[in-house]
Amino acid sequence: MGKVTVVGIGPGSYEDMTIRADTALRACDAIVGYPVYVDLVRDRYPGKELHSTPMTREAERCQLALELARSGKTVAMVCSGDSGIYGMAALVYELRGEAQEPEIQVVPGLTAACSAAAVLGAPLTHDFAVISLSDRLTPWETIEKRLDCAAAADLTIALYNPASHGRPDHLKRACDILLRRLPGERLCGIVRNIGREGQSSRILTLAELREAEVDMFCTVLIGSAVVKTVAGQLVTPRGYRNV
Amino acid sequence: MGKVTVVGIGPGSYEDMTIRADTALRACDAIVGYPVYVDLVRDRYPGKELHSTPMTREAERCQLALELARSGKTVAMVCSGDSGIYGMAALVYELRGEAQEPEIQVVPGLTAACSAAAVLGAPLTHDFAVISLSDRLTPWETIEKRLDCAAAADLTIALYNPASHGRPDHLKRACDILLRRLPGERLCGIVRNIGREGQSSRILTLAELREAEVDMFCTVLIGSAVVKTVAGQLVTPRGYRNV
Ligand SMILES: C[S@@+](CC[C@H](N)C(=O)[O-])C[C@H]1O[C@@H](n2cnc3c(N)ncnc32)[C@H](O)[C@@H]1O
Ligand SMILES: C[S@@+](CC[C@H](N)C(=O)[O-])C[C@H]1O[C@@H](n2cnc3c(N)ncnc32)[C@H](O)[C@@H]1O
Repeated sequence: MGKVTVVGIGPGSYEDMTIRADTALRACDAIVGYPVYVDLVRDRYPGKELHSTPMTREAERCQLALELARSGKTVAMVCSGDSGIYGMAALVYELRGEAQEPEIQVVPGLTAACSAAAVLGAPLTHDFAVISLSDRLTPWETIEKRLDCAAAADLTIALYNPASHGRPDHLKRACDILLRRLPGERLCGIVRNIGREGQSSRILTLAELREAEVDMFCTVLIGSAVVKTVAGQLVTPRGYRNV
Repeated sequence: MGKVTVVGIGPGSYEDMTIRADTALRACDAIVGYPVYVDLVRDRYPGKELHSTPMTREAERCQLALELARSGKTVAMVCSGDSGIYGMAALVYELRGEAQEPEIQVVPGLTAACSAAAVLGAPLTHDFAVISLSDRLTPWETIEKRLDCAAAADLTIALYNPASHGRPDHLKRACDILLRRLPGERLCGIVRNIGREGQSSRILTLAELREAEVDMFCTVLIGSAVVKTVAGQLVTPRGYRNV
């Protein structure tokens, strides 16, 4: 019996992978994942069996990984960022069910909120919420409620999946909800293609964010009440009291 | 002029560091940090100048790092987990102010929420909030409000700093707030000393969590409405709709 290691490879560059993730990829027989992620790692780990399934075929992809492990292979299932957060780890556990085999190991990785924050400066210093704007698996009303609560709680907010082909206006709708509680001048940031070719970032106000163009390769951060810029970087001080 | 790299070293073990963090520690002249974190890395990076200041002397520690950089040194300021989240990155930017020198680089790291989740199974699959129970820099009323909003929004919640010597009952008080909205049977997890000697973890209900003993080396996760156990692991399915 082989095993499935669900590997968070971080935002994209080799340098942002953990040593544990690198070791798991070196050690495996097969790499399974969404095509973009398999492409990110294939050249560095030659001689592996490669399998990818398209975006919406996650269950199929996890089943394949479990099958390969049952046939004796050591399988690395690659996810961008962290392997849990909007990733495959839960689905692999669910599809294996109450069986104890094949062995599953979850290797966490640098999630986009943390890598986006480091590009912008230090905006993720204090309490925050991570919310996906994809309504593929969650009703839009639930997403709206979460945005509203996060704004009411003065949390810094990291938005994942801010847009996709099928839903180009989700970010605008999200901003409209936030603008009910937060001022239009509130500082925000967008980081695109972190650690990948063409990485770019921008600091802007919430009012500007409402009009901004984003795609599925962007992570968006919305500052809390204390966010500011320091020497051109987006910075959230450590707390409400001065140290 | 030297530079300051604020390095998130992850939860504790070398394997959970990113390759970028490892490279920064190899390349530096001086390592600055809270004593526990300096101790975690000192043996692996011999021949470095080491400086540590106690827990509450963060500003002093960051000033020292900036001073060393001004004197021409390459300084790695180590933080556990991510370098931004309840870490030193923002304070280094603030203390440098509007000056452009010395150069500051932020190297993100695996934050405790992600590494705790991987130990427990896959509980951090979907939208979540990270909240610190330390009221050293934030008024307790703000913390209460954030807990209440996160529960109202059905977010998975990661609690950092769940207790310390000065405030042994913060977790109990936090659970009481959550229990106003969430059932006592809601599944939770505690992970202690992730990636360090004596790592341990426990899955328990919110009612049990209220009575649990925790310390500053623990991270606590509180599941959302859909959390469950699968083969003894804490798992949050990917969304509200079946795939
Ligand atoms: C399906 S989610 C996967 C999240 C991933 N597991 C993580 O922890 O970062 C995809 C979303 O993550 C964010 N993301 C992932 N990698 C990114 C990168 N390299 N640059 C910018 N955003 C990224 C974007 O918001 C994207 O729409
Ligand atoms: C001052 S905060 C630092 C957080 C850190 N920057 C991060 O991103 O993980 C300290 C808290 O982080 C959590 N933590 C950090 N490292 C941990 C570890 N190795 N095991 C369990 N919890 C940890 C605990 O909740 C602890 O009280």
